[in-house]
Amino acid sequence: MTELSWIRAPLRAPDPQAAEAARRRQARLTKPAGSLGELESLAIRLAGLQGRECPRLERCHVSVFAADHGIAASGVSAYPQAVTAQMILNFAAGGAAVSVLARHSGAAFEVINLGTVEPLPPTAGVLDRSLAPGSADFSQGAAMTQDQLEAALAVGAERVESAADAGSDLFIAGEMGIGNTSAASALGAALLGCPPAQLLGRGTGVDAAGLARKEACIRRALELHAEAGDELELLRRLGGFEIAAMSGACLRAGQLGLPLLVDGFIVTAAALLAVRLQPSLARWLFFAHCSAEPGHRLLLEALNARPLLNLDMRLGEGSGAVLAWPLLQSACRLHSEMATFDEAGVSEPPADSDPCRP
Amino acid sequence: MTELSWIRAPLRAPDPQAAEAARRRQARLTKPAGSLGELESLAIRLAGLQGRECPRLERCHVSVFAADHGIAASGVSAYPQAVTAQMILNFAAGGAAVSVLARHSGAAFEVINLGTVEPLPPTAGVLDRSLAPGSADFSQGAAMTQDQLEAALAVGAERVESAADAGSDLFIAGEMGIGNTSAASALGAALLGCPPAQLLGRGTGVDAAGLARKEACIRRALELHAEAGDELELLRRLGGFEIAAMSGACLRAGQLGLPLLVDGFIVTAAALLAVRLQPSLARWLFFAHCSAEPGHRLLLEALNARPLLNLDMRLGEGSGAVLAWPLLQSACRLHSEMATFDEAGVSEPPADSDPCRP
Repeated sequence: MTELSWIRAPLRAPDPQAAEAARRRQARLTKPAGSLGELESLAIRLAGLQGRECPRLERCHVSVFAADHGIAASGVSAYPQAVTAQMILNFAAGGAAVSVLARHSGAAFEVINLGTVEPLPPTAGVLDRSLAPGSADFSQGAAMTQDQLEAALAVGAERVESAADAGSDLFIAGEMGIGNTSAASALGAALLGCPPAQLLGRGTGVDAAGLARKEACIRRALELHAEAGDELELLRRLGGFEIAAMSGACLRAGQLGLPLLVDGFIVTAAALLAVRLQPSLARWLFFAHCSAEPGHRLLLEALNARPLLNLDMRLGEGSGAVLAWPLLQSACRLHSEMATFDEAGVSEPPADSDPCRP
Repeated sequence: MTELSWIRAPLRAPDPQAAEAARRRQARLTKPAGSLGELESLAIRLAGLQGRECPRLERCHVSVFAADHGIAASGVSAYPQAVTAQMILNFAAGGAAVSVLARHSGAAFEVINLGTVEPLPPTAGVLDRSLAPGSADFSQGAAMTQDQLEAALAVGAERVESAADAGSDLFIAGEMGIGNTSAASALGAALLGCPPAQLLGRGTGVDAAGLARKEACIRRALELHAEAGDELELLRRLGGFEIAAMSGACLRAGQLGLPLLVDGFIVTAAALLAVRLQPSLARWLFFAHCSAEPGHRLLLEALNARPLLNLDMRLGEGSGAVLAWPLLQSACRLHSEMATFDEAGVSEPPADSDPCRP
């Protein structure tokens, strides 16, 4: 297990003095105290994480991790597996939802191929980190070998290191992989100790028969892997290459002190697994949205997360996180750029009155 | 009433064929059908409003309407009235929250002074449309004369016309006025026919005694003006200059076919009044957020509104709407710029399967 010792390395600690300075600054800005709601607490939290009174979120890095899943052979998705490779090309060509959003947001954007059933030629904008033509079917055995697990975790860590080296101040992980809601549901059910039916919903769009098949398949897999033991072994048996990469990315982001904005159901499953490995990772995670997947709500609750958006999205790819990033950015800009009462010559309410909406 | 006949002029009708073309386009984009949630219905709705398959929201106009309120003399706010004029200068100088957000969003931004207790010198970025040094105290008599009401409505219409002439595709009204939550609460209670206590909350930050004073003051005013009659007369008696201007802006936006993104509690009260005058105006209104003001939720429910954000903001100024504008913009960009299945060579699910999350 030497190859995985980095997973347990300590995370960066936030700076409570910077957070306190930010709290004091918020009270001096030209607005009734508290009137920017969540934007105030986000700015204060980011100040603590970045160790400065005025945090900045101007350079966002988006990595979309893609891989195929053996479980797709069990007919859990309406799409053929070839779509994973096709979508990788669509990401790189700029035609996918997350590509459009990232292009306009000014974020750095890359796609990482961790292994698809359909082979892909070298493509500009796609990093080839193929481990195999997809993971194995977790309803028959373990999804990954130990070597594949370690390599996938390391790919996530590598992309976070690259983003940090480039001066990024926010990391977004997105994903693509036909069948990966099944893997995320299996992992989520195992981590929460709840029946998989609670995580699956009509949000997937499958009909009742398809849903029943998916649920039975996951339930059998959970029985097969009931003796898995620790979280890393659960990840190896039930996860997938891109899910493991994202768990690795979360942990490395916490170690390097790079805040990470969590996207939808699949990323949240990867993040929950990483938080179970290192609970203090939670302070480095922000949550973009609550998707239409019922399982997503359960995972968010387990993480005490309060997501920024609730627009019934269920696309994945990192699309919800790239959409929500400007909200975090605005929280920082308001905090840094608004005038104080002194600077603007605006009267404050009497000290003995509660701060009040004018 | 000749001066107000424009209020009843017909609104633009949306184009159902453009909306239908947009709906068909959504089904061809490279994503599971429905997976962009609200963003899909927003794009389709905007297509109908703009009369084109691919709507655009690239030029947003923000008008902040400011005025003082006679009701402030009753001690309903913790801030002195001088703050209205001070904040007008802060808006123009770029130090207020909405100024920071508008600057980064690329929106056109202007402040309109409809009349403050403290006189203001001519200031770059502030349009002087002063009607009086604030409205009259509505707990003693009518807030406005008939001439003032007509002039205030016309100012809102004028700013929408100016925005439309400049090629804007979205209008945002913001507001500032010490005491205007009291005016909006009185108007809201009168329009909804509910006790004012239901609209007032600790969200304002006042203590229990202050809240009781505010509520008693509004209740007396509602008794005083119980015979007001129609909505325009309610607006004249209970509103304020900036509230009337925003009602006028909403109606003119609907007449010119310019979508309007509604901000917080005060703007929503002005919008509800305008919708009561012309119910089909509702289709031109989008709702940015649900604020921490309890009254806001009630007004939104009366408008069947589903706001985009829920971040416990309660600042006003148009800040929530300028923050939410990029979400509408992203809905349009995704709709226009995502590749179709054909273009990207991505396989669609079999026609007999439900669209499904991969």
